[in-house]
Amino acid sequence: MKKLINNPDNVVKEALQGMQAAHGDILKVNFEPAFITRKNPKKGVAIVSGGGSGHEPMHGGFVGLGMLDAACPGAVFTSPTPDQMEAATKAVDAGKGVIHLVKNYTGDIMNFQMAADMCASDNIKVETVVIDDDVAVKDSLYTAGRRGVGSTVLTEKIIGASAERGDDLTTVVKWANYCKDNGRSMGMALTSCTLPSVGKPIFEIGDDEIEMGVGIHGEPGRERMKLKSANELVDMMIEPVLSDTGLKNGDEVILMLNGMGGTPLIELYLLYNRAVETAGKKGIKVVRSLVGNYITSLEMQGFSVTTLKANSDILKLWDAPVHTAGLRWGV
Amino acid sequence: MKKLINNPDNVVKEALQGMQAAHGDILKVNFEPAFITRKNPKKGVAIVSGGGSGHEPMHGGFVGLGMLDAACPGAVFTSPTPDQMEAATKAVDAGKGVIHLVKNYTGDIMNFQMAADMCASDNIKVETVVIDDDVAVKDSLYTAGRRGVGSTVLTEKIIGASAERGDDLTTVVKWANYCKDNGRSMGMALTSCTLPSVGKPIFEIGDDEIEMGVGIHGEPGRERMKLKSANELVDMMIEPVLSDTGLKNGDEVILMLNGMGGTPLIELYLLYNRAVETAGKKGIKVVRSLVGNYITSLEMQGFSVTTLKANSDILKLWDAPVHTAGLRWGV
Repeated sequence: MKKLINNPDNVVKEALQGMQAAHGDILKVNFEPAFITRKNPKKGVAIVSGGGSGHEPMHGGFVGLGMLDAACPGAVFTSPTPDQMEAATKAVDAGKGVIHLVKNYTGDIMNFQMAADMCASDNIKVETVVIDDDVAVKDSLYTAGRRGVGSTVLTEKIIGASAERGDDLTTVVKWANYCKDNGRSMGMALTSCTLPSVGKPIFEIGDDEIEMGVGIHGEPGRERMKLKSANELVDMMIEPVLSDTGLKNGDEVILMLNGMGGTPLIELYLLYNRAVETAGKKGIKVVRSLVGNYITSLEMQGFSVTTLKANSDILKLWDAPVHTAGLRWGV
Repeated sequence: MKKLINNPDNVVKEALQGMQAAHGDILKVNFEPAFITRKNPKKGVAIVSGGGSGHEPMHGGFVGLGMLDAACPGAVFTSPTPDQMEAATKAVDAGKGVIHLVKNYTGDIMNFQMAADMCASDNIKVETVVIDDDVAVKDSLYTAGRRGVGSTVLTEKIIGASAERGDDLTTVVKWANYCKDNGRSMGMALTSCTLPSVGKPIFEIGDDEIEMGVGIHGEPGRERMKLKSANELVDMMIEPVLSDTGLKNGDEVILMLNGMGGTPLIELYLLYNRAVETAGKKGIKVVRSLVGNYITSLEMQGFSVTTLKANSDILKLWDAPVHTAGLRWGV
């Protein structure tokens, strides 16, 4: 295993120390239990997310003005524990209700549910929204139903802006459900990745093979196939993503072309170009975009596409200022 | 070769099309010859940089308000041509002089010199500043003297802010020379990378080996050695970087912990944490930072550290608004 680490057991802790050192103007890391909050807490509805580490900048990199109030990092590719989620929720609750934004994995669902129950007994009102946007497969390793992937990033931005401007719990939940219903993703991998604690790749893949529809933990996708051209790959992914929510001629979308962690930016731009073209041929216009590493799988090479149907309300929320380690504009 | 491309000959062009599609609010791509300018040109001193592609977001990702006026992308790991540089220079010259910011590689030096000569005959005043910040080796493949690497990113931010606020050519050149004199870097690689046009790794490296002091084109460094802990690696790199410019107890620096393109962000934060600690033990305080992929080598795994000695003038320039694809704050 070739990794830039000290001890596999300390990777998450030392990375959190680095985040604290680099972004002390934005966030505050609590270590026992581990959660990240804003340096300057806001009033109003609070948003808490979390999940296994190894997907950085998600979620800790999205804590800050206009996005999350708290994030709970688990061990690498492992759900955080209910006590992390409970402590984070208590830390950011301002009496207006808290949203738990959860990606659809069995461990995350179970632990966030326990945390919500624990918070309820402390009279904190918690609403849970589960993101399950991955069109690649129905059930998967670690998941009943669709997996939660890239839409989570866009949802955190949209509902973070809603909460930031003072919307009430019902309204913020409404936008979360809009994103749940209208965001879709699909990913693929050229290479596997290695958990520090395991020391060998989580799956084997041939020199001329790809995993089409891979999950962010290396879960199997739709098909193990031979490597194809970038254009063919993009088209194989963007078409099910667009069609799954019935997007049609004249619709507008926010498009994220996301790297899995080990893909060069030059390739992501090339892929993005094709995604915009292919969407355009269907009459679907890309009106906002992200190109880069936003939801990753350690050093995996590959990419994912995510679209969220846009409208003037959504674009207003999207364009609102955001100041986090991973996403920043307008401030 | 496992890459997300269509035709090796079209990688740069298609990536530029993607940049245009993603960042049309910031920049404009000219294709024949290839250069990138701001969508909204500014008056005053203009700054032009460029170099081989494959190091994204550098340089095209740094075109925009508060940074570059133009960037010239060459073929992957290949200097752009004099006609690209001449056309870019003419496109952004506003009569107040143009700075060519050049990384110290023989091809870049030669081609930028030819371009400067061509511009001189058109009565455009061009000043050239060569960045040569890599402390790893004295001479190298493609380079006489030290290589130009990470300091280039910090220099583009600093002098971009100087030009943006209306400083004259002499002043902007002064800040460029400050950065040249006070910025230092060193890199290392866990893995090699593959040029699309070649199809095999540019160097071979064992499963337990690293290249300490690697260049951004995979040039040999100081030593091929066995993999060490993250802390040992950071210390081996940060110490020569800090000592080369005589930084001492009480000094302040801007620190960039840069990924080579294929390194997970979780590892970069872990490395950053150690870099801040080790600098701190020498009494050197990190007052600003960048952690992420800013000057890359395709899909290479590895990292580099760059420091720039800070003072109140430099921090004022650093903190000024910037709006580019790769770096954004304050706007």
